[in-house]
Amino acid sequence: SIDMNRLFDRLRSLGAIGRGEDGKLVRLSASDNDKAGRDCLVSWLNEAGLEVAVDRIGNVFGIWRDESNEKEMPLLLGSHIDTVIDAGMYDGCFGVLSGLEVIETLKAAGIRPQRPVVVAAFTNEEGVRYAPDMMGSLVFAGGMPVEEALAVIGHDGSVLGDELRRIGYAGTLDPGFLKPHAYLELHIEQGPVLEREGFTLGAVENLQGISWQRITIDGIANHAGTTPMSMRRDAGHAAARVVTFLRDRAMASNSPTVATVGCMQFEPNAINVIPSRAMFTVDLRDPNEQRLRAEEAALATFLEGLAKAEGVRVSVERLARFEPVIFDGDLVAHIEEAASRRGLACRRMTSGAGHDAQMIARISPAAMIFVPSVGGISHNPAEFTPEADLVAGATVLLDVVMDLVRS
Amino acid sequence: SIDMNRLFDRLRSLGAIGRGEDGKLVRLSASDNDKAGRDCLVSWLNEAGLEVAVDRIGNVFGIWRDESNEKEMPLLLGSHIDTVIDAGMYDGCFGVLSGLEVIETLKAAGIRPQRPVVVAAFTNEEGVRYAPDMMGSLVFAGGMPVEEALAVIGHDGSVLGDELRRIGYAGTLDPGFLKPHAYLELHIEQGPVLEREGFTLGAVENLQGISWQRITIDGIANHAGTTPMSMRRDAGHAAARVVTFLRDRAMASNSPTVATVGCMQFEPNAINVIPSRAMFTVDLRDPNEQRLRAEEAALATFLEGLAKAEGVRVSVERLARFEPVIFDGDLVAHIEEAASRRGLACRRMTSGAGHDAQMIARISPAAMIFVPSVGGISHNPAEFTPEADLVAGATVLLDVVMDLVRS
Ligand SMILES: NC(=O)NCCC(=O)O
Ligand SMILES: NC(=O)NCCC(=O)O
Repeated sequence: SIDMNRLFDRLRSLGAIGRGEDGKLVRLSASDNDKAGRDCLVSWLNEAGLEVAVDRIGNVFGIWRDESNEKEMPLLLGSHIDTVIDAGMYDGCFGVLSGLEVIETLKAAGIRPQRPVVVAAFTNEEGVRYAPDMMGSLVFAGGMPVEEALAVIGHDGSVLGDELRRIGYAGTLDPGFLKPHAYLELHIEQGPVLEREGFTLGAVENLQGISWQRITIDGIANHAGTTPMSMRRDAGHAAARVVTFLRDRAMASNSPTVATVGCMQFEPNAINVIPSRAMFTVDLRDPNEQRLRAEEAALATFLEGLAKAEGVRVSVERLARFEPVIFDGDLVAHIEEAASRRGLACRRMTSGAGHDAQMIARISPAAMIFVPSVGGISHNPAEFTPEADLVAGATVLLDVVMDLVRS
Repeated sequence: SIDMNRLFDRLRSLGAIGRGEDGKLVRLSASDNDKAGRDCLVSWLNEAGLEVAVDRIGNVFGIWRDESNEKEMPLLLGSHIDTVIDAGMYDGCFGVLSGLEVIETLKAAGIRPQRPVVVAAFTNEEGVRYAPDMMGSLVFAGGMPVEEALAVIGHDGSVLGDELRRIGYAGTLDPGFLKPHAYLELHIEQGPVLEREGFTLGAVENLQGISWQRITIDGIANHAGTTPMSMRRDAGHAAARVVTFLRDRAMASNSPTVATVGCMQFEPNAINVIPSRAMFTVDLRDPNEQRLRAEEAALATFLEGLAKAEGVRVSVERLARFEPVIFDGDLVAHIEEAASRRGLACRRMTSGAGHDAQMIARISPAAMIFVPSVGGISHNPAEFTPEADLVAGATVLLDVVMDLVRS
């Protein structure tokens, strides 16, 4: 069984890296803080005696293989260690560190696996600095040319490729240099389902589709005191209409569609100036592709009407678009069985969040194990999963890996 | 008559100071760019042979007096040279430079005024960096203690007093060291009325009341993909509701109330995070104090309901509050007469914008002359007034000043 103290110690250590004086954890992809986190992970991979590899998109791998199994396709475990702004310490890190923990446990037990076992930390899973999200695993799976990904410009104007070089994680290996036999990702649920229904584990069957857009509304700046309401072309007001439209629509429907405006910026952003420009993001998700398309279409129609009604110009940039993904049925069943052998209450479920597993599913059987998030809180410093649940998740991961490396 | 070429040259020169590489004019109060603008103005005041004085709040004065008139209360002309973000070049500067132009014209004509004539450039009229607006003239008029004003923290975290010292404009004179006999301010209208109705000049009778508030909404950050719509405490969405409430209410009423949300900021401002916080400003104005109070009360009631309905915390900070002001009837009539003597179409009117005149009106008779703004556009780089209208305004200012310094 796994060394839970080592796992918790590492989780806490990594969670302290990139924490500012204000106590906020921010380890955006390819930032200085991300470099510090990566350096720490690499030191642990080295200590564990793994072969460390970095590919051109900056994905970090710890490879356990020997002459007896190096010809076999590896079993890949992984997740990410980049974070959102003011993040919790479990999101992503728990999966990477559990993957490492499983490998160290197997090594210490003298197991000789039939195939290599690899733990991966994928670049820029969060997508907060560079869009799309899950970028490292997307490139690894061949879904985006590496040159295109390296050229992406972040919300801070930086270029991902430059930043990876700067922090020393622009590797030389071609993404996809490993062809996985299967991929497993352990992650916190980040939502309320497991806790609410009293399950310790989730066997994730599918992931919802993700649609990310950046919308820019151009109006006309004018004086807040002198301009009659009827003469305004207020970009900020038009943006607010989009926010309330999305909310009202999502609340009114019976579908699980979720719609979020997370980023908002006004220009010139002055108290007595009618905004000339508003830029904001729209995150739309639905497990059903048809419904997701319908939501996108409804938004587009609304924006057209808004442009006419408000006399503003609306432009839309697509930042990410992923269709819903269905995981490998055998792997999902395998997770369920392993949980049941340990007597752990496990539920099949959909993931609301996007995950690297959804990209790797393009090139190999993939599935995920979820542990509960207290209060359904994530992307928030209050993100928390009790230690017993973390241990349950890592133990079932260990069990499934043991099964898979024996055959 | 005035030297219109000198006036236009100076307007253009000042309009080039603080213009960035992107062509945007930004001369926020007490910034480096403001220092450059002030230095330029002071050089012109010196060239004109005026006595230059700076008070503790950084108001700059060019004083024309001699032994024969120095015991009389001065006639004060003025406005401001600070700007908003991405500003036009007329707002404020036109009034200050016309005041200087009038003094130079009288001097050159050998006029010996019965009283000193002074041109003033008041600190931080725009209020974009430090609230409240019209701060320099407010302090000059005794409406705010100078220590309190110097301690104001700007939207960029800077302290006004520190910044004035840094740029060399923390003077030693007590604000109010001059007691004006009367105050005149020439300004662009910044609104659509004069142009729409075909008038060359406005004789401003009154100014509307101004209410500025900063509203902070605290919700709970959570994951955009996993959090069901019904479980959200989305601060950004709540802020959008305030924007649309203000707009709908102002549009529905028959009153001239205007409501503007000019600044908006989300935290953490990440695409896949439900905003934990939204901070925004509300600018409410009405020429009628009772109505302005009713609008403020309606907003407060709405915010209370919103906090309950959305499960968010709302806090409100007052940034500025000025009651409507009525100007001196004799001065207004004087302006009308002077315009009519020149054969210029002049209309009595209300000012939609706040002006230094509204503060000086607390301590002396005051009035304003407006010239048209093409398309009603201001606080926008497209701000424009045809040269003929600028000349008409400066000429009527000259005429009124001539009358006032003879008696
Ligand atoms: N798991 C996770 O938070 N992924 C980030 C991508 C997204 O779902 O927004
Ligand atoms: N004239 C002018 O733009 N004043 C700034 C203060 C305000 O009215 O918002």
